[in-house]
Amino acid sequence: MAHIALPDGLPGIVGPLTQYPETGIPLNALAEAVLRGPSPLTPGERELIAAYVSSENDCYFCCQSHSAVARYHLGADAHLVEAVIKDLDSAPVSEKMRALLRIAKKVQMGGRRVTDVDVAAARAQGATDKDIHDTVLVAAAFCMFNRYVDGLATWAPDDPALYEAQGVELATVGYARQSLAA
Amino acid sequence: MAHIALPDGLPGIVGPLTQYPETGIPLNALAEAVLRGPSPLTPGERELIAAYVSSENDCYFCCQSHSAVARYHLGADAHLVEAVIKDLDSAPVSEKMRALLRIAKKVQMGGRRVTDVDVAAARAQGATDKDIHDTVLVAAAFCMFNRYVDGLATWAPDDPALYEAQGVELATVGYARQSLAA
Repeated sequence: MAHIALPDGLPGIVGPLTQYPETGIPLNALAEAVLRGPSPLTPGERELIAAYVSSENDCYFCCQSHSAVARYHLGADAHLVEAVIKDLDSAPVSEKMRALLRIAKKVQMGGRRVTDVDVAAARAQGATDKDIHDTVLVAAAFCMFNRYVDGLATWAPDDPALYEAQGVELATVGYARQSLAA
Repeated sequence: MAHIALPDGLPGIVGPLTQYPETGIPLNALAEAVLRGPSPLTPGERELIAAYVSSENDCYFCCQSHSAVARYHLGADAHLVEAVIKDLDSAPVSEKMRALLRIAKKVQMGGRRVTDVDVAAARAQGATDKDIHDTVLVAAAFCMFNRYVDGLATWAPDDPALYEAQGVELATVGYARQSLAA
């Protein structure tokens, strides 16, 4: 049971976003900006970072949700999501993406863990300032979303079909629309 | 030196917020909602949570900045900021605030660390659902802001006078106004 009263039947972050729109609307606007706004990283790449960080934070709801969104966006490369979560070192992602995901992992552990060497490794694979910025921000944002979801002990359904359906909706409708409907 | 190119002379989070307004504006809007929006917790209490979590995350810039904002709002109780950061167990805060700050510390460590016992202890001191929600969200949000600031290795000035001046500005002008000026 969640630590606070939340609307019935709304899974994970959807409960508190709906219950408290005064913070729910800016939280959804931030998710939209970070995951769907202008970036050299595709929405699929950013959702992959989100799913990976959520897995490292052991946030079942966010990991399942954003894995489903990432699979939708990645299409033929959907298998990369499970591969990255299982073992980043051996996953068949590009070397640029691997270097950015390693930065994301450092951010998850703590901001000061990101080193000049980590950043140089990403630049050597072609990462730009904006790639690095967006990777750090997506990883940092999911350190917030994951803690919001689990710190309130929100309901995380077991049914994989629910995450698939929600993933398709988030991938096609986006995040900001949902906040206005809430 | 920061990991990416940022405007000269802008300390901490102000650099990336200014450089990338597409995410800077929603980040500032979230800070305004979380720290200044409707809440049973005063701005001073929320800034105290922000400063404490920033200290636990070892984020010098955010801890100095939000300590200064908290001191401004807390007025005669400004000394509580240093006391909480030094030792929460002995700090002369209310028992309700101590219980909420203990929840904030659990959130900082990871969302799943917050237990029913932690929440019951806060409720026993009069904490409501919204007190608990806002504490979890402020703590979670600073786990993002701290990682954004330090994951990019932004510039953290040493001069305490700078943080005091910035603290007064944030306390009196707020966060959202700044984003529009950026």
